[in-house]
Amino acid sequence: MPLKPDITPPEAQDTRVGFALVGIGKLTAEELIPAARTSEHAYVAALVSGEVDKAQGFAHALGLTDGDAYTYEQFDELAGREDVQAVYIVTPNSLHREYATRAARLGKHVLCEKPLGVNAEDAQAIVDACREAGVLLMTAYRCQYTPEHWAARDAVQGGTLGDLRLLHSIHAQVEDDPEAWRLTRELAGGGPLPDVGIYSLNTLRFLTGQEPEWVFATQHQPGGDPRFREVEASMSALLGFPGGVSATIQTSYAAFKTTSLRAMGEKGSLNMEPAFPYDGLKLQVSSEGGTHKPTFPKYDQFTLEFDHFARCIRSGDTPWTPGEEGVQDHVVMDALYESARTGQVVRLPTHAKRDAFRGTKPQLPQK
Amino acid sequence: MPLKPDITPPEAQDTRVGFALVGIGKLTAEELIPAARTSEHAYVAALVSGEVDKAQGFAHALGLTDGDAYTYEQFDELAGREDVQAVYIVTPNSLHREYATRAARLGKHVLCEKPLGVNAEDAQAIVDACREAGVLLMTAYRCQYTPEHWAARDAVQGGTLGDLRLLHSIHAQVEDDPEAWRLTRELAGGGPLPDVGIYSLNTLRFLTGQEPEWVFATQHQPGGDPRFREVEASMSALLGFPGGVSATIQTSYAAFKTTSLRAMGEKGSLNMEPAFPYDGLKLQVSSEGGTHKPTFPKYDQFTLEFDHFARCIRSGDTPWTPGEEGVQDHVVMDALYESARTGQVVRLPTHAKRDAFRGTKPQLPQK
Amino acid sequence: MPLKPDITPPEAQDTRVGFALVGIGKLTAEELIPAARTSEHAYVAALVSGEVDKAQGFAHALGLTDGDAYTYEQFDELAGREDVQAVYIVTPNSLHREYATRAARLGKHVLCEKPLGVNAEDAQAIVDACREAGVLLMTAYRCQYTPEHWAARDAVQGGTLGDLRLLHSIHAQVEDDPEAWRLTRELAGGGPLPDVGIYSLNTLRFLTGQEPEWVFATQHQPGGDPRFREVEASMSALLGFPGGVSATIQTSYAAFKTTSLRAMGEKGSLNMEPAFPYDGLKLQVSSEGGTHKPTFPKYDQFTLEFDHFARCIRSGDTPWTPGEEGVQDHVVMDALYESARTGQVVRLPTHAKRDAFRGTKPQLPQK
Amino acid sequence: MPLKPDITPPEAQDTRVGFALVGIGKLTAEELIPAARTSEHAYVAALVSGEVDKAQGFAHALGLTDGDAYTYEQFDELAGREDVQAVYIVTPNSLHREYATRAARLGKHVLCEKPLGVNAEDAQAIVDACREAGVLLMTAYRCQYTPEHWAARDAVQGGTLGDLRLLHSIHAQVEDDPEAWRLTRELAGGGPLPDVGIYSLNTLRFLTGQEPEWVFATQHQPGGDPRFREVEASMSALLGFPGGVSATIQTSYAAFKTTSLRAMGEKGSLNMEPAFPYDGLKLQVSSEGGTHKPTFPKYDQFTLEFDHFARCIRSGDTPWTPGEEGVQDHVVMDALYESARTGQVVRLPTHAKRDAFRGTKPQLPQK
Repeated sequence: MPLKPDITPPEAQDTRVGFALVGIGKLTAEELIPAARTSEHAYVAALVSGEVDKAQGFAHALGLTDGDAYTYEQFDELAGREDVQAVYIVTPNSLHREYATRAARLGKHVLCEKPLGVNAEDAQAIVDACREAGVLLMTAYRCQYTPEHWAARDAVQGGTLGDLRLLHSIHAQVEDDPEAWRLTRELAGGGPLPDVGIYSLNTLRFLTGQEPEWVFATQHQPGGDPRFREVEASMSALLGFPGGVSATIQTSYAAFKTTSLRAMGEKGSLNMEPAFPYDGLKLQVSSEGGTHKPTFPKYDQFTLEFDHFARCIRSGDTPWTPGEEGVQDHVVMDALYESARTGQVVRLPTHAKRDAFRGTKPQLPQK
Repeated sequence: MPLKPDITPPEAQDTRVGFALVGIGKLTAEELIPAARTSEHAYVAALVSGEVDKAQGFAHALGLTDGDAYTYEQFDELAGREDVQAVYIVTPNSLHREYATRAARLGKHVLCEKPLGVNAEDAQAIVDACREAGVLLMTAYRCQYTPEHWAARDAVQGGTLGDLRLLHSIHAQVEDDPEAWRLTRELAGGGPLPDVGIYSLNTLRFLTGQEPEWVFATQHQPGGDPRFREVEASMSALLGFPGGVSATIQTSYAAFKTTSLRAMGEKGSLNMEPAFPYDGLKLQVSSEGGTHKPTFPKYDQFTLEFDHFARCIRSGDTPWTPGEEGVQDHVVMDALYESARTGQVVRLPTHAKRDAFRGTKPQLPQK
Repeated sequence: MPLKPDITPPEAQDTRVGFALVGIGKLTAEELIPAARTSEHAYVAALVSGEVDKAQGFAHALGLTDGDAYTYEQFDELAGREDVQAVYIVTPNSLHREYATRAARLGKHVLCEKPLGVNAEDAQAIVDACREAGVLLMTAYRCQYTPEHWAARDAVQGGTLGDLRLLHSIHAQVEDDPEAWRLTRELAGGGPLPDVGIYSLNTLRFLTGQEPEWVFATQHQPGGDPRFREVEASMSALLGFPGGVSATIQTSYAAFKTTSLRAMGEKGSLNMEPAFPYDGLKLQVSSEGGTHKPTFPKYDQFTLEFDHFARCIRSGDTPWTPGEEGVQDHVVMDALYESARTGQVVRLPTHAKRDAFRGTKPQLPQK
Repeated sequence: MPLKPDITPPEAQDTRVGFALVGIGKLTAEELIPAARTSEHAYVAALVSGEVDKAQGFAHALGLTDGDAYTYEQFDELAGREDVQAVYIVTPNSLHREYATRAARLGKHVLCEKPLGVNAEDAQAIVDACREAGVLLMTAYRCQYTPEHWAARDAVQGGTLGDLRLLHSIHAQVEDDPEAWRLTRELAGGGPLPDVGIYSLNTLRFLTGQEPEWVFATQHQPGGDPRFREVEASMSALLGFPGGVSATIQTSYAAFKTTSLRAMGEKGSLNMEPAFPYDGLKLQVSSEGGTHKPTFPKYDQFTLEFDHFARCIRSGDTPWTPGEEGVQDHVVMDALYESARTGQVVRLPTHAKRDAFRGTKPQLPQK
């Protein structure tokens, strides 16, 4: 009785690309591990954590053994794990460089959380280390892999909106633990800008395929708030894109959760809100006839990232968001901080080519 | 450097309640397997399918072995699997009774997809078999386990809406494969009513905690449509609830995907739309001051079901939606079909007690 | 300096069609008088009320004089008012017949609020009186004149939704004054059904252009509620349209304000909510690609009615919603009440022709 | 038969405050005239236009006579019209000063469209003229009179949002007639900023009750576009408010119609979209528990303005948005243009007092 002959099982777990997850925080526990379990081409083969108990606990939950759990001190032992072809680095930002470099030297491909480093120089060192070692490097910009963000990009670049005029994006949330490493300049490299504001910046660059030519920014550190001794609480910025298109970006660690993305052209506008959560993205495109809310297939953003990088590892292609894409965000963020410090416009190098820092286009999920 | 000391790993895989999934269709492949992987208290220990290759393929994808894959002929071999404490039956409806009964005789607890059987008599036989065998039986009514549906129930029963007056629900979708088992009366027991319309019926019963006293229904089978030779394409029904509350329900296999749920009282109304998908439920409650859209924690509906049943297995509690709850939907559906056939109102037994067929309240997911 | 050469003044007040407003309640005061002031082709030339002070007060507010204010006793004096070409009857329902008939005898055209009468026989008498007198009669169904409702009709009849399967509409609101004439059977002819439920019925007939073939209804009068001694508090109904399309309608005077309209077909669905207010109608049409919310020009519903009837008076055309359209709603409502009383299905005469009771199509407002 | 004893007629037309409308463009024809007709305390007693035919045409449409229509040359003849207590100036911006000054000299109170003048100096001259003449002056900022904007202000100032962090507003639309006076610097004083961007600026000032301390702006004039030879096509700006609150504003005459307003605080956020149309404003306030969309009474924005000014004329109170409020917007807009020209931050005078330029609070419409 062939009731459902069309259900084919996914790739067997042991022939997928094996990843070591480096760092076990909330993102690893709640998003990456479940995503890897439903990835078509990737799986978790090993775990690295500062706490051996935690690494072992997650290993067991995954059906792995104590031998698949490593401390940071044991990191180089991954060299002997042929089943570990890649690492996914999910440590505090300031440790990305060390573990990316060490992984590259072990011959492991590197998928690194955003921001790539703590500033442009730091990020560039990661790019250099991976190039020298001959391993692939991908910056984990999940919002460059979703069908919603690609549909938004198509609306901007495909003419639906007419000549583009204005861009705007907000990414704000409340960070209420004064002890969080994200509030330490040395570990994080900054405040909300490199953590959440980077989505606004990165996605506007992705939508247009273009690079800002200048920036102006203002930031605020409320006196007496123990959370913001080292990093900004909020930042607002103006960015000049080619062709007179101006963008505003706002980010905060002290404002109610908001993620918004807009592009306005002569003939239409698009609005994505929420724009940056792990799921539930909502895109609407308005033009003279009305507003259209397109339907998209279901997917998991982290699975899309795992699968894209796994495919690149097999094919040797440059990922869509390689290390260079991560460096460029740092170049712009460094300029934003400089502007906020000096009160002056900061100019940036121009890039005539579209998608100047991107690689091979990813496959989008199908319905 | 205790950067994230608060992330604790979930229960180890091998100490959770082991389930055998019986039947591998779209629901099993796309929802149950991923859900079981992220369940706190359950895991997939074995798979049963008509096609051994498929069962083995999914076993490998889960990190299991060929020995964990069974054909229906080998079903009784599960007796020897101490790690399999429960089965989740996901076969065509007409097979629920056979495999629930066999599982019960093996001493396995039974989680059974809705509808519990093909009619009230068939469903009651499953209840009886599980009672005799001393195993737990739960009907998989996922919409009785979500925080959104519980918030809706609270609004109805807690007075937010004032005196309740009107109820309404739609669950329609297009079934476009004339060969689908769901379009065969013998296998499915009916058309859209027991497959999708059951959500409307079951959820209105859940919202009010009450049982309809009478029903009136009309159904349609469009002539010449090869899909609807045996079962209805659409049904619309009127149900009389206690206190003069009247409900309308509409369901179809030939109408654009729609899932909607409303309750209207003297002081307010609630609207859930979509009301029945696996995620993305949206509840809004309106009253004089305006409309409120509450925020809910993230969760997986199937994980909630797995976890509730696993907890009941450990505690011996009756599940919130036991077999009796599944039988009662069949009692009402049998009456709806009778009314549609006769063109007359059909009266139902009354039940003075609220939640007459339900067990121990489930834990709701926390933020 | 021709800064705005394109603004042309509307028709001078004194060359438009003059109306006498008969009955000054909330609708007249808050909607009809403002609408008439912005109508292109109509204006208020006289007012009739049971209270002379009120009529004179509104006359002064309109810039008219005491001589333009009439009591019901003075109604026939309108015969001498050549500037009054038409009356708009806004009295309690049971008085429509008397004043429509008297107006017709005076040679005045009649625009009558819905419901046309208190039952089909009463309504037919109005049609007959106007035919005999040779004056035009229009039932004031404002929702057959809006661009939103026409776009919905086009979606249903033009194929956007594919084969039509299910219809649904709710119109409920709270009537909290036990002394309101609308709660008196003699004056109103019924409860929420002829007052607000009629919108659901009338609009489903308009969307499809077809007539229900049978109805089944249930109604509720909560014991001890002083509001519902004479009329129903709520009604739910099932209606069978040609081709197996089934509709559900729900209405109430004891449920929170809700106005909703849905049509579901094989390829798409439409949802209008709110569906029946004076402004702010929102239509969305969903199909496989997503959801579209069309944009509509601004307009005033009552102005559209005034203008349509004024054009018909000038051209001699039958209004789009003549008296016959109003009678047919009464035929169906009489059947609904009969079904609610007997608990049986009530069959209705069939009508092969689309738009069997309608006249000349109205002009829709342009952007 | 006292069927509706609670309907009381509004004030008689001839005892309301009589206005002369000065300038007949789209706003006058489509908004002000209908609004004045439904105002409780104001009415149109005279019309002034450059084209006598147009003025007479509208006079007739209003039921007035040729004698109530004036050319600009006849403006001073309004002196003899005792029934004209106030003028509403709706001319191109550069003419506001002349007609406001002449009206003041005639002893007429002045309601003036925004922007008050073409720059701060020009606007101040109007304030001075009215003060010298002892007449009231109100800038027609309709968005400071709606219940939605007051509810937004209450959310910001009343603590619902917690400590305020970020503000954002967009007001963009397409101006496609290259001959429009709004695209002429001499007549308009600027491009989209003083016409539509002013709503963003003015409303953020209103929400906070505070004044920006500094601004930074960028503007764009696309080469070769005949519309933007004299004025900017688009502007994006950053404004620093007291307490480290930063705001972004974006405006354009070359971008699809968008009106949006946001305020984000530590505990919640508000979003109004659309934010500035004549009707259909939608406010939503989000905090941890969810999103609330309050309900508001119906009203006409222009009626609210007419009524507020009429009440002030009777009571002698300073309007809520007097001339000084209009001057302050020009002070900020002058700074924005200076910044856009110089590429530098421009600092502004500080104002310790909340609502530094506002008068008597308006009455809000009741349900």
